[in-house]
Amino acid sequence: MQIASLPEDRPASDFAAGAAYVRGRFTPLSEASVPLSDWGYRRSDVTYDVVSVWDGAFFRLEDHLERFQASMRALRLQPRESLDEIRRVLARCVQLLGSDAAYVAMDCLRGTPRPGAPRHPAFCENHFAAFAVPWVWVIPPDVQQRGAHLIVAKTPRIGDASIDPRIKNFHWGDLTQALFEAQDRGADNAVLLDAGGHLTEGPGFNVFVVKDGQVLSPDRGALDGVTRKSVFELCAEMAIPFVVRPIAGAEVLEADEIFLTTTAGGIMPASRIEGRILGNDRPGVISERLREAFWRRRAEGWHATPVASLASSRGG
Amino acid sequence: MQIASLPEDRPASDFAAGAAYVRGRFTPLSEASVPLSDWGYRRSDVTYDVVSVWDGAFFRLEDHLERFQASMRALRLQPRESLDEIRRVLARCVQLLGSDAAYVAMDCLRGTPRPGAPRHPAFCENHFAAFAVPWVWVIPPDVQQRGAHLIVAKTPRIGDASIDPRIKNFHWGDLTQALFEAQDRGADNAVLLDAGGHLTEGPGFNVFVVKDGQVLSPDRGALDGVTRKSVFELCAEMAIPFVVRPIAGAEVLEADEIFLTTTAGGIMPASRIEGRILGNDRPGVISERLREAFWRRRAEGWHATPVASLASSRGG
Repeated sequence: MQIASLPEDRPASDFAAGAAYVRGRFTPLSEASVPLSDWGYRRSDVTYDVVSVWDGAFFRLEDHLERFQASMRALRLQPRESLDEIRRVLARCVQLLGSDAAYVAMDCLRGTPRPGAPRHPAFCENHFAAFAVPWVWVIPPDVQQRGAHLIVAKTPRIGDASIDPRIKNFHWGDLTQALFEAQDRGADNAVLLDAGGHLTEGPGFNVFVVKDGQVLSPDRGALDGVTRKSVFELCAEMAIPFVVRPIAGAEVLEADEIFLTTTAGGIMPASRIEGRILGNDRPGVISERLREAFWRRRAEGWHATPVASLASSRGG
Repeated sequence: MQIASLPEDRPASDFAAGAAYVRGRFTPLSEASVPLSDWGYRRSDVTYDVVSVWDGAFFRLEDHLERFQASMRALRLQPRESLDEIRRVLARCVQLLGSDAAYVAMDCLRGTPRPGAPRHPAFCENHFAAFAVPWVWVIPPDVQQRGAHLIVAKTPRIGDASIDPRIKNFHWGDLTQALFEAQDRGADNAVLLDAGGHLTEGPGFNVFVVKDGQVLSPDRGALDGVTRKSVFELCAEMAIPFVVRPIAGAEVLEADEIFLTTTAGGIMPASRIEGRILGNDRPGVISERLREAFWRRRAEGWHATPVASLASSRGG
């Protein structure tokens, strides 16, 4: 398809809070919407992905696009836009935003049944939407500095046989409940266990446990995070042993260090779990080494794709 | 709050396909939307309810409103509109639609964090939306006539400890998957079991099993459906024994009859399960008696609230 021309009549300031692409058109985020009747909303029948922009460059864009495509295939979603058009839409959203540090989301929604078609997801017009907003921290920087205070939520994570967490989705009811649990108990955030009592993930982030010098990450029940993948690469480079395996809830409580990873924040150390103080009530040594390496490597252009290299002058 | 005045400048025909209420205004459904950034969409952090209108009257409106309020309380959602305003909004949507048989939805969405507030669901501006569309059949009438062909989905229903199915929600990923399974296997629809192999519900409906003259319904893992409640009342009136208890998957396969209940369809009999023919490959005797009684009682004004009794002339 042909991406519609830009709203040339809009001043750049209209896009400063967010630039979006919906129904083939670029628009300020405040005007971007989903139909009230769209099954992307009414049945949460949608997948998405989020890529970050730092110093004017996407981080691991192709990893995010690959996952987004795999998610769409798994849910039998097919937007009109080609992969190359999606790349250019994302870049154009960032250019319209006019910021060199951004959080860039891409969604593919089920839509609604075509006129006269059966009320079944197989007969819907799927559609793609995207937006860029100024950089978002899932954990505020001051909290990252002292280390996040976490709880283990009583709400179990939705089972992966029902909703596959590797297909990025908006089924956040359990995660939202966990955020309320954390607030009620005076904590910053929460991690969730599965029904069998094993560590999964938290609201928008992967979880790592450090024990006896080893970095541990759950082998299932969580998103295959792109930042998580970066941690594995850094561990390999830095000769820090890491293991991917089931992690019992008790191991979380007895951790030497805990850190969280997400596109919207990178590597974020914790300093307390369920009220227990980890180390010196500050981010742990291995967590800090990894965080420092992560941002140093990004400043060096690690896995970077400059936004300008993708965007055409007219976005079409 | 004051409900905004009507769009008097719109011809009635603009509302014939659907009449909605969003952000305090009435609008054709085709123009009603949810912000792309709203957590009601991006985190499926929303509850809803659906009430039917038949012969110009709501069916069990107060039951639906009571459940909607309980769902909002459980999710800590609070719209600006009072209960009485919600009643009048629903009635006005039906009047604008101009149909005496309608499907009327009400949503309460989380919204987005207030400017400057933490990124946490506790600090969002919740909002209410509603719409009326011409009557929708979850199972088309011709399929109801011959009896629906059902499968037992391989996808398990999301566990009720993670997402409480009694709080009506849009976490439909497992239900959507089940709809694809049904289509792939040439069936009309699917019922889902929980992780322990017990019957729960299907995409938008409760499930009943009839065995040895007894009507059975699951005691957990499913919505407390308003039509389901009506079935219990009819069973009591008609001296048909009914039991609410766990129902094993095997009992579903060995049922004498199966029927489904939903606001968008009433009582809908099945005639096949997993390829097995139930009875004479037609709706069963008890299912048909209940369906006949259900529509007869509705025609008599059972639990009916005339739309006109709630709507003021200006909707405000």
